[in-house]
Amino acid sequence: MTRRAGQVLASVEVVAGYSTYIDLVRPLIDGKEIISTGMTKEVARVEAAIEQALAGKSCAIVSSGDAGIYAMAGLVFETCKIKGIAMVPPGSDSKAANDKNILRLEVVPGIPALCAGAALLGAPLTHDFAAISLSDLLTPWELIEQRLEAAARADFVIVLYNPKSKKRNWQLGKARDIILRHRDKDTPVGIVSRAMRAEQNIKIVTLDDMHTAEVDMQTTVFIGSSTSSKYMDFMYTPRGYAKKYEIQS
Amino acid sequence: MTRRAGQVLASVEVVAGYSTYIDLVRPLIDGKEIISTGMTKEVARVEAAIEQALAGKSCAIVSSGDAGIYAMAGLVFETCKIKGIAMVPPGSDSKAANDKNILRLEVVPGIPALCAGAALLGAPLTHDFAAISLSDLLTPWELIEQRLEAAARADFVIVLYNPKSKKRNWQLGKARDIILRHRDKDTPVGIVSRAMRAEQNIKIVTLDDMHTAEVDMQTTVFIGSSTSSKYMDFMYTPRGYAKKYEIQS
Repeated sequence: MTRRAGQVLASVEVVAGYSTYIDLVRPLIDGKEIISTGMTKEVARVEAAIEQALAGKSCAIVSSGDAGIYAMAGLVFETCKIKGIAMVPPGSDSKAANDKNILRLEVVPGIPALCAGAALLGAPLTHDFAAISLSDLLTPWELIEQRLEAAARADFVIVLYNPKSKKRNWQLGKARDIILRHRDKDTPVGIVSRAMRAEQNIKIVTLDDMHTAEVDMQTTVFIGSSTSSKYMDFMYTPRGYAKKYEIQS
Repeated sequence: MTRRAGQVLASVEVVAGYSTYIDLVRPLIDGKEIISTGMTKEVARVEAAIEQALAGKSCAIVSSGDAGIYAMAGLVFETCKIKGIAMVPPGSDSKAANDKNILRLEVVPGIPALCAGAALLGAPLTHDFAAISLSDLLTPWELIEQRLEAAARADFVIVLYNPKSKKRNWQLGKARDIILRHRDKDTPVGIVSRAMRAEQNIKIVTLDDMHTAEVDMQTTVFIGSSTSSKYMDFMYTPRGYAKKYEIQS
């Protein structure tokens, strides 16, 4: 957690979030009003938070990781746009910022799972990478396939979010098949579950075995590019200094 | 800065880093031994830090943003692999962890420019995205072009690192031309310089005008996908909730 996130949580009157994430910050929000809902209630949660804020209460919506990466920040904008609610950034000195029909919104960045997981693996993201969610709940599978194919062909390191859930169990195997068309079967694949939390789990396997690894909705998968490699228990992607500056062995 | 980064800086004996970044944490490292070098001396800096650590001193290498995204973490692994230096993660309980020829290495994740910049713009990265560095110092330009083409074609949001430097001034214009083959000229492009630092600068332009915007080595460029849009002074990419759950206007 960043210092800024801590400051914001300390300063607000209301905290909204998925119950699991509320529990993670529970010690920091003692005595505050809490809007806590289940996993599929994102829209209701965001609507309730906006309502509170427009009623004059300072309100934080918490996400795990970074609020802007496959998380709640986008939904706040989607909702405000549809409802025609005006919004200004926190530093805005326009008169609008004092109008009670206008939402003052600050997005506080955080450590996304792709950074937390990468740090635990070593340094797989030191070169160009693509982040792709395998969830086809809100995105057509054809588009996900097209992105997997494009990222694999252009030799991006590929970070997979939402690789599997109870109801979705074939997407990771299909992703493996697509990527194998362009990448060696021994390519290292880092698998990180619950990064920096209790029951954290880190594993490095090969692309060939990726689909058999234990993954769930709290897992992030890092598929190396053609230059990524495993060293000791770490996985990394060189930036290319060795070639350019000739590090002496 | 995260709490963990603060703890690590407080606990180490030696801090190594590019002089600009050392200056940013100067108040936190008073009295510590400092290895500070210029911008192109990354290899020397990392070698010196590793030497100190192997000599028994705890040593932190600081990067701006996240150490694992286009930053120094990868170079530590590149260097150790070439030099054949064994390394273990911090929690390692193997006997090896006490061997003085073995490096105990922890990568501390941070807020990458892509998260800090996205938060300032709104929520441009709520859906699949690709990060591409336009620096052809360590990467052949042909590969960079191939990645731009692939990411544009598959409708990724595209985050450009190192868009321009004093010596490299044509790459951003070329990137624009490639992306325009697949994306509307009115696509919103967020341009963030020195996110969260003094002289921070935020602007939203169109893809058509992207190459004329003021950018430098401290700028990150966010090119929207076909679904990204501008609302008020913000830029965001919908996850797709509106379509699925029908947010009421």
